[in-house]
Amino acid sequence: MALIPTFATPPGFLGIERRDPGAAFTIAGIPLDIGTTNRAGARDGPSAIRRASRMLVDGAHPHHWVEPAATMDIADAGDFAIVLGDLAASLAAIEAQAAPLKHLVALGGEHGVTLPLLRALRKRVGEPLGLVQFDSHLDTWPENFGQRLAHGSVFYHALDEGLVDPRRMVQVGIRSPMGRDVRDWTLARGVTIIAAQEALETGPAAVAERVRAVLGGGPAYLSFDIDALDPAFAPGTGTPEVGGFATWQVQAILRRLGGVRFAGMDVVEVAPAHDVAEITSLAAATVAWEYLALLGAEGG
Amino acid sequence: MALIPTFATPPGFLGIERRDPGAAFTIAGIPLDIGTTNRAGARDGPSAIRRASRMLVDGAHPHHWVEPAATMDIADAGDFAIVLGDLAASLAAIEAQAAPLKHLVALGGEHGVTLPLLRALRKRVGEPLGLVQFDSHLDTWPENFGQRLAHGSVFYHALDEGLVDPRRMVQVGIRSPMGRDVRDWTLARGVTIIAAQEALETGPAAVAERVRAVLGGGPAYLSFDIDALDPAFAPGTGTPEVGGFATWQVQAILRRLGGVRFAGMDVVEVAPAHDVAEITSLAAATVAWEYLALLGAEGG
Amino acid sequence: MALIPTFATPPGFLGIERRDPGAAFTIAGIPLDIGTTNRAGARDGPSAIRRASRMLVDGAHPHHWVEPAATMDIADAGDFAIVLGDLAASLAAIEAQAAPLKHLVALGGEHGVTLPLLRALRKRVGEPLGLVQFDSHLDTWPENFGQRLAHGSVFYHALDEGLVDPRRMVQVGIRSPMGRDVRDWTLARGVTIIAAQEALETGPAAVAERVRAVLGGGPAYLSFDIDALDPAFAPGTGTPEVGGFATWQVQAILRRLGGVRFAGMDVVEVAPAHDVAEITSLAAATVAWEYLALLGAEGG
Amino acid sequence: MALIPTFATPPGFLGIERRDPGAAFTIAGIPLDIGTTNRAGARDGPSAIRRASRMLVDGAHPHHWVEPAATMDIADAGDFAIVLGDLAASLAAIEAQAAPLKHLVALGGEHGVTLPLLRALRKRVGEPLGLVQFDSHLDTWPENFGQRLAHGSVFYHALDEGLVDPRRMVQVGIRSPMGRDVRDWTLARGVTIIAAQEALETGPAAVAERVRAVLGGGPAYLSFDIDALDPAFAPGTGTPEVGGFATWQVQAILRRLGGVRFAGMDVVEVAPAHDVAEITSLAAATVAWEYLALLGAEGG
Amino acid sequence: MALIPTFATPPGFLGIERRDPGAAFTIAGIPLDIGTTNRAGARDGPSAIRRASRMLVDGAHPHHWVEPAATMDIADAGDFAIVLGDLAASLAAIEAQAAPLKHLVALGGEHGVTLPLLRALRKRVGEPLGLVQFDSHLDTWPENFGQRLAHGSVFYHALDEGLVDPRRMVQVGIRSPMGRDVRDWTLARGVTIIAAQEALETGPAAVAERVRAVLGGGPAYLSFDIDALDPAFAPGTGTPEVGGFATWQVQAILRRLGGVRFAGMDVVEVAPAHDVAEITSLAAATVAWEYLALLGAEGG
Amino acid sequence: MALIPTFATPPGFLGIERRDPGAAFTIAGIPLDIGTTNRAGARDGPSAIRRASRMLVDGAHPHHWVEPAATMDIADAGDFAIVLGDLAASLAAIEAQAAPLKHLVALGGEHGVTLPLLRALRKRVGEPLGLVQFDSHLDTWPENFGQRLAHGSVFYHALDEGLVDPRRMVQVGIRSPMGRDVRDWTLARGVTIIAAQEALETGPAAVAERVRAVLGGGPAYLSFDIDALDPAFAPGTGTPEVGGFATWQVQAILRRLGGVRFAGMDVVEVAPAHDVAEITSLAAATVAWEYLALLGAEGG
Ligand SMILES: [Mn+2]
Ligand SMILES: [Mn+2]
Ligand SMILES: [Mn+2]
Ligand SMILES: [Mn+2]
Ligand SMILES: [Mn+2]
Ligand SMILES: [Mn+2]
Ligand SMILES: [Mn+2]
Ligand SMILES: [Mn+2]
Ligand SMILES: [Mn+2]
Ligand SMILES: [Mn+2]
Ligand SMILES: [Mn+2]
Ligand SMILES: [Mn+2]
Repeated sequence: MALIPTFATPPGFLGIERRDPGAAFTIAGIPLDIGTTNRAGARDGPSAIRRASRMLVDGAHPHHWVEPAATMDIADAGDFAIVLGDLAASLAAIEAQAAPLKHLVALGGEHGVTLPLLRALRKRVGEPLGLVQFDSHLDTWPENFGQRLAHGSVFYHALDEGLVDPRRMVQVGIRSPMGRDVRDWTLARGVTIIAAQEALETGPAAVAERVRAVLGGGPAYLSFDIDALDPAFAPGTGTPEVGGFATWQVQAILRRLGGVRFAGMDVVEVAPAHDVAEITSLAAATVAWEYLALLGAEGG
Repeated sequence: MALIPTFATPPGFLGIERRDPGAAFTIAGIPLDIGTTNRAGARDGPSAIRRASRMLVDGAHPHHWVEPAATMDIADAGDFAIVLGDLAASLAAIEAQAAPLKHLVALGGEHGVTLPLLRALRKRVGEPLGLVQFDSHLDTWPENFGQRLAHGSVFYHALDEGLVDPRRMVQVGIRSPMGRDVRDWTLARGVTIIAAQEALETGPAAVAERVRAVLGGGPAYLSFDIDALDPAFAPGTGTPEVGGFATWQVQAILRRLGGVRFAGMDVVEVAPAHDVAEITSLAAATVAWEYLALLGAEGG
Repeated sequence: MALIPTFATPPGFLGIERRDPGAAFTIAGIPLDIGTTNRAGARDGPSAIRRASRMLVDGAHPHHWVEPAATMDIADAGDFAIVLGDLAASLAAIEAQAAPLKHLVALGGEHGVTLPLLRALRKRVGEPLGLVQFDSHLDTWPENFGQRLAHGSVFYHALDEGLVDPRRMVQVGIRSPMGRDVRDWTLARGVTIIAAQEALETGPAAVAERVRAVLGGGPAYLSFDIDALDPAFAPGTGTPEVGGFATWQVQAILRRLGGVRFAGMDVVEVAPAHDVAEITSLAAATVAWEYLALLGAEGG
Repeated sequence: MALIPTFATPPGFLGIERRDPGAAFTIAGIPLDIGTTNRAGARDGPSAIRRASRMLVDGAHPHHWVEPAATMDIADAGDFAIVLGDLAASLAAIEAQAAPLKHLVALGGEHGVTLPLLRALRKRVGEPLGLVQFDSHLDTWPENFGQRLAHGSVFYHALDEGLVDPRRMVQVGIRSPMGRDVRDWTLARGVTIIAAQEALETGPAAVAERVRAVLGGGPAYLSFDIDALDPAFAPGTGTPEVGGFATWQVQAILRRLGGVRFAGMDVVEVAPAHDVAEITSLAAATVAWEYLALLGAEGG
Repeated sequence: MALIPTFATPPGFLGIERRDPGAAFTIAGIPLDIGTTNRAGARDGPSAIRRASRMLVDGAHPHHWVEPAATMDIADAGDFAIVLGDLAASLAAIEAQAAPLKHLVALGGEHGVTLPLLRALRKRVGEPLGLVQFDSHLDTWPENFGQRLAHGSVFYHALDEGLVDPRRMVQVGIRSPMGRDVRDWTLARGVTIIAAQEALETGPAAVAERVRAVLGGGPAYLSFDIDALDPAFAPGTGTPEVGGFATWQVQAILRRLGGVRFAGMDVVEVAPAHDVAEITSLAAATVAWEYLALLGAEGG
Repeated sequence: MALIPTFATPPGFLGIERRDPGAAFTIAGIPLDIGTTNRAGARDGPSAIRRASRMLVDGAHPHHWVEPAATMDIADAGDFAIVLGDLAASLAAIEAQAAPLKHLVALGGEHGVTLPLLRALRKRVGEPLGLVQFDSHLDTWPENFGQRLAHGSVFYHALDEGLVDPRRMVQVGIRSPMGRDVRDWTLARGVTIIAAQEALETGPAAVAERVRAVLGGGPAYLSFDIDALDPAFAPGTGTPEVGGFATWQVQAILRRLGGVRFAGMDVVEVAPAHDVAEITSLAAATVAWEYLALLGAEGG
């Protein structure tokens, strides 16, 4: 049992007290939401995810048998500064703050934050990244309502800028209405799309197998848009789409991704004002904890 | 991307601006809830479903590749008038308003509205209709608490009046407590009942197969009571029953109903005051959008 | 249809009006929550579960074809007295109140109430009990934050005191972080643990088979912690863990437990202040109703 | 302290266990809401008000020093039957059920229930009644959307049928938009209207003085529409209007109405689905408790 | 009674159907919230205020005896376009869209929108404006977290740019923590500040008298930040401060501002995701309706 | 403006980063709620109050012109340890933890925590304390449902043990039902009771005058039960009573208590699960901030 008695919640993710940026893994919140196109409020995601993580600290992961906060080299560096009211400047600031960190686990914030995180990571690893994206949306629109940097365009730019290797990129849980041209452009780059219906009918093991095959052996990134989950499991988000995953299915996939050379991850689009009973925040915290335990089990 | 920038929601379903009743398909809300037997509030369903439909307008359906609002001949005629405090008179008014419409997609309102819609449609098509009803309740009670026209009796009358061909009628998702006599009466008419447990254990493909077989080749109607979904997916309803469908399962069934000669549909029993984060309204909007895309894909 | 017209809710569980403790089955609420370790409020579970049970009274169970409130010998004796602010004294009081009852169906309250219920039942049946526990937590910690009697230690004591036969004990749905030593201690006693991921991947029929095999032919007890369900299905609880059951899966398991010699049950950890649209309370009421119908179908 | 320990709530109003209709005062719920013109859900008012009344049972009224449930001759007879989906028949049924009761304290339900209650009481007392109506609406429209019996027409009929003596009728808290013709008709009958702004600026003592003057010495009735309170104090209602009373002001007025010959009262329009933290239900319960204590202090 | 039956809500403010920009008064929504510094979501204010306004359409204003939607020359032009993720560009776009309108009633959106509205209006009227600002915040910070155009700086720029005549500017309801230098700067310009405590202790009549005296006879603007109300009356906002107005007090002040030469107004900072039971949206709708009725009563 | 950009919330009250117990003022949370008699959840009060305090850090108090977090010698020591499930042991632990602190500002937790805080403070100051208690309840019951240490008995013991000088004790806002014997006992000790109705009718200045007169010149303590506020202003509490203060009135009283020799304070009974939009937590945070600013203005 933790030293903190009963109901007191230490403020760091998983109660982590280390704050300096030199750890092997760094948690950081990115409270950006000015590029969202429907319901606002992802700015409050990081603090809500941290609070919800208190359910995940009294023991080891029940599959990987790792207790991340106790045995891994992790710091929670707090939240990144953003530039109020200026999306372009915010993305630049995020990239600058991410650059010196070794292995970043980012808590969003909107999905737009992934673009500067990939830019920073691409420079660090020196080659295009593999990417597994859980999402109900492609996020490869060239722009959203005229804004090139909004949350629906993040992977358009990631592909366009060569941050990601399209043949090593897979999108899981896709189901929103979409422009067919947008989808065709994405497929033409070489990206693999696993639609939600297909993922749900074939089951987690088959999905995990395909994801592993696409990611291959190079450095990889996990970008988890919480709207990949069905709104029943994640109501607290800005652009919900019905027909998504149950949380256990996502866990079943993630637990089968051992051996992938992950170099960073984010969980984004948690909007607590629309949540109920913290269930969305808890799901997001659990995704980050699954990731850490997966890597911890491999000596990460 | 739509012309309407960012967060502004056009008031029609899927942003449809056409209002006249001459379209091939007409959306109409029916804000009736005075025949509900538990929690009230389905009167607010139509406006909430319309608002939630804003998530479904920025692209094509990801399976049928149809964009209903952009390419189909659809109007949203607004809400039907009802008679305040008088269920019988309201049903008569609904029938009269439905009569001249070509192909009605009705947004409830309580399930009781289906009776006058079937009466009008039966006259239009000139023969008894096939019917697929998604519901957790049979709705074939002869009366509810003494009221013959309440929402639990709608299909008793539909069968009794010959509006529906019982051998071409199938009920999917049934799971509430029920009088055994009521069930036996229904089965004795020739109706097919697919219990929720059976549907969930056999999976969407098997259910769709049975539904198609029952409906056959004649004109058919889809009546979707949102309480067919589990309350986790549709808390905003008046008579919830646990143990129901996930939304993706319903979508998987509907997408397999190509070729059925649908002549009308409704989605009913959305009670927004009990909803959270619009998830029930979004599920209902999605059901209507699935229906439109299914028909649109067939040149509907 | 019930004599009570329309929306009026009789206060007893399933509208049961019998109040004396001499019935074959006795419903009792146990409004204890002072041993919970995260969110409070399980004290309000009993009254909320009773209210939600109004959805379950207008007919027979759709699988067992039993109408518990109409045909079984059941009383709702109201709520047990507890000792405010004193967990140890409360447990003693609960045991004393449970002792004279024939077959108790307890509505919690926190999981800690199960310990005195098992103590009382162990005396009544004269031998250690079989136990099936639905839960996301092992609840075999020797103490919680220093408190030996808190809700996470209930089965440590049940095993330690010989109330339960560990070879006839099975835990279903386990998924929280846990001390590996706690798990090893539990397994070393001979307890069977079915993790949530395993249960969800193998399906209800396989789980039910294993549960039946473990319980065998002796007297058995069902302890249902509502957090066995995924938070999407049961947000109204104190220590939620994502990755759990859908309600239909639990029903599918319970319906396959015919022939087990159940001598008592509880459904615990419903915290209505965190619920939405009564869905958690309804799920809990349904679990108790499934149990009653299962036993009623066997002439219980 | 009550015999009921801790959190258990006895189901009757103020925990009253007497159920027969022969008491000097009878509490009854009237779960009608099919004549409401905006948000639904007043049908759930009676049960919510009863639950909220648990805050009012552990002691005497702090001004009148009466403990109604302990020392007055009161029964809670449960809820009146209504006729589902039929407003006219429901009103007739309500009148018939109210007729034999000595002094009725009715818990609504919508304001439309007051009309049959006044009809029954007018017969019992043999003369037109004085009336004090707390409301944000006049409720003297001749009809609402074509329905003569809806909740906005109740006092049109009460005046038109001679149930109330207009010179002994006063409306307090009026502030909604209104047809000037409707107001002029009301004033022309001789009714006194105290607008919300006037009441709030002059204070409770002045308002109470005017109310007493209008009611005079004859038999009188109190009809309390909870929307007389500001929505901050009573969000759980169907037709809210901002700019209303704080609850303490209403209490200050009611406590000054000693000596008025009250023969009955109702508190209506509580719609719990829109409430937060039970505050509207508690306000409504408190109004009924103030009324009982006022009469109890006079030996009622 | 309106032609629209029962529960159907026409989408325009007060049900107004005129959409063209040529009316004497134009309603417009401005769904901007990317310059807010605490809770997000004001982008959804305009649609929520319009929906809530359905309570205000069935009759005349009870003080001014004007029915704005029926008798005044008003259009609801819909929502202004904004530039996603770019505050500076959004403000420019807002100014351009406001420029051609005769008398704008703007529904926010964050308070930052007032700056471009004042820029446009200053040009139209040809002289600095008088201003009455209801707010809990001064909004005269030179910048917020580095952003010069955020919602806390709007009146710094309005004064700095000479859009407003500081001797004819009065701030009402101020109570947040504030930099003393910010307050001194504001006072030094000549602005009048009426703190919340002072306003609440002296009463609406005294406040109205001071406001009228400050505004004088020149053209004036009303900017109403909904956080001027206490959070009990307006929880649905981003930067709440306790200790504010009750809604009736604000109405009492506004009704006494006859004769002021108002040339435009806004009501801002409504964030519906944090609202309960629509009470904040209704309060905001009521403020705009009070303004229209005030001007309508003067032949506006 | 604070160094922390935009939406990030530092975890200490008012963002205070000092954690050691040697400061002139120490903030501490006390997450106890096992002695509450109605709705649970006050254990989550401290963390919610801290979060809500982020609204109070960007400037000086607008009356006292003090910025507590910036200029006063304050630490936030985190939460006290309590003993799970054992009220008596918890109170002992609280007293031990409070003993070494110089001037404690405690964030509850239930009102029962005040007893050990007074025990510790009585020892420190060496004489009975003056006390001003804001509350809707007397809290001088000798026991609650058999429990002597529950939250309704705190001042019975404080008086009985001589911790407080009854002639220097005043209770403000009292309005719940109460045993007349309990009230008479309290008055007979010499305590001053200012009922809510009296306080609301005479106004803040008169109340403050009486409070100052009672407290006199000796050391004094402020105990603020958040249920002193009306439930409209503080819905997030366990035992709400309508008819209470608006927050501004409480602020107006507190600001007039300059010169009182306060030696400690608490704000208790915040139960966030029942709150809406953080308004109760913000009110509680504001009360503590008012207290600090009051003392800071006197050089505290
Ligand atoms: Mn997405
Ligand atoms: Mn995304
Ligand atoms: Mn149904
Ligand atoms: Mn149905
Ligand atoms: Mn558990
Ligand atoms: Mn458990
Ligand atoms: Mn009214
Ligand atoms: Mn009324
Ligand atoms: Mn403001
Ligand atoms: Mn402002
Ligand atoms: Mn209290
Ligand atoms: Mn207290």
